[in-house]
Amino acid sequence: MSPRRVYSALVHHPVKDRDGASVATSVTNLDVHDIARSSRTYGLSGYYVVTPITAQHAIVDRILAHWRPGAPGAGRVPQRAEALRLIQVARSIEDAVADIEAREGRPPRVWATGARAPAGVDTLSFAEGGERLRSDPEVPTLILFGTGHGLVGDTLAAANAVLAPIRAGGDYNHLSVRAAAAIIFDRLFGES
Amino acid sequence: MSPRRVYSALVHHPVKDRDGASVATSVTNLDVHDIARSSRTYGLSGYYVVTPITAQHAIVDRILAHWRPGAPGAGRVPQRAEALRLIQVARSIEDAVADIEAREGRPPRVWATGARAPAGVDTLSFAEGGERLRSDPEVPTLILFGTGHGLVGDTLAAANAVLAPIRAGGDYNHLSVRAAAAIIFDRLFGES
Repeated sequence: MSPRRVYSALVHHPVKDRDGASVATSVTNLDVHDIARSSRTYGLSGYYVVTPITAQHAIVDRILAHWRPGAPGAGRVPQRAEALRLIQVARSIEDAVADIEAREGRPPRVWATGARAPAGVDTLSFAEGGERLRSDPEVPTLILFGTGHGLVGDTLAAANAVLAPIRAGGDYNHLSVRAAAAIIFDRLFGES
Repeated sequence: MSPRRVYSALVHHPVKDRDGASVATSVTNLDVHDIARSSRTYGLSGYYVVTPITAQHAIVDRILAHWRPGAPGAGRVPQRAEALRLIQVARSIEDAVADIEAREGRPPRVWATGARAPAGVDTLSFAEGGERLRSDPEVPTLILFGTGHGLVGDTLAAANAVLAPIRAGGDYNHLSVRAAAAIIFDRLFGES
């Protein structure tokens, strides 16, 4: 499978805290690993860890250094090293968009995600989203995931589309962002 | 949604290490949390953390204690506490099966999972599995997930069925067990 022109980004700023205020969250090791592995498994071309905090960039660099060619992790679990090669750090969503434009020669469409549908916004179903990705594979796409309590309203408003929330059959939805990202990739790209 | 008569179990022993030998792995905090949250979101009735190692039971107990009614976590993130109430520790797969039988009045059918289809075993597709769960909801079901390099051959051989590996469109499959469990619940129970 050649990589899709699809990219993921895990946004640590700006995101909501439990009161809806805009905050920056901390990078966690397992978010970096898990979403890289899921991105690689579903054939994405890149995974951006988005944070403006320089000290957090150093944390990601330290994780990646462990898995670079020649480093201890790379020999031990080569598949993991392959997944982590997808990772780039970006200071902002805009920087991730600019980086994709530089790689692909055109800016990506940006799709936001969230656990609840924002009021007054038409969401894109997974069936429709998957169909769009298959029908124009030359258009790059960036899928945004929020940490904390989710992406802020301005990010949703600026996106080209907001994907529908995952419906699991009940009214409880408290998936981790790692689980949600995996399910969304599977709904858009998986084979049953 | 009333809870389904479906249970998950994360098996820490016996599982394979990278050379295929049977080992016990350590419980990790995020496996406990993430799979509990996914199990609760998809309406499962319980989530067993399976390990024979008594010191590991204490680790799970410590995680759970933080989220019991009245404890610091319970007030802060009530949804999380609700997910963690699904968790039970079991010393073995057999103990989890016996516990489900005691709760449900009949033993569960046991479905194993894995990243690769075992040689010579017919696997159960997700469409077929979902259909069976819908057509006889009164039969309890236990879905087993392996840590490390997956469930051992004896566990697969003893299971009533082995679910098909997740196909993502390529030949790379290196999902975390947290991501795989979320995708499998979604394929069996999710609404698109």
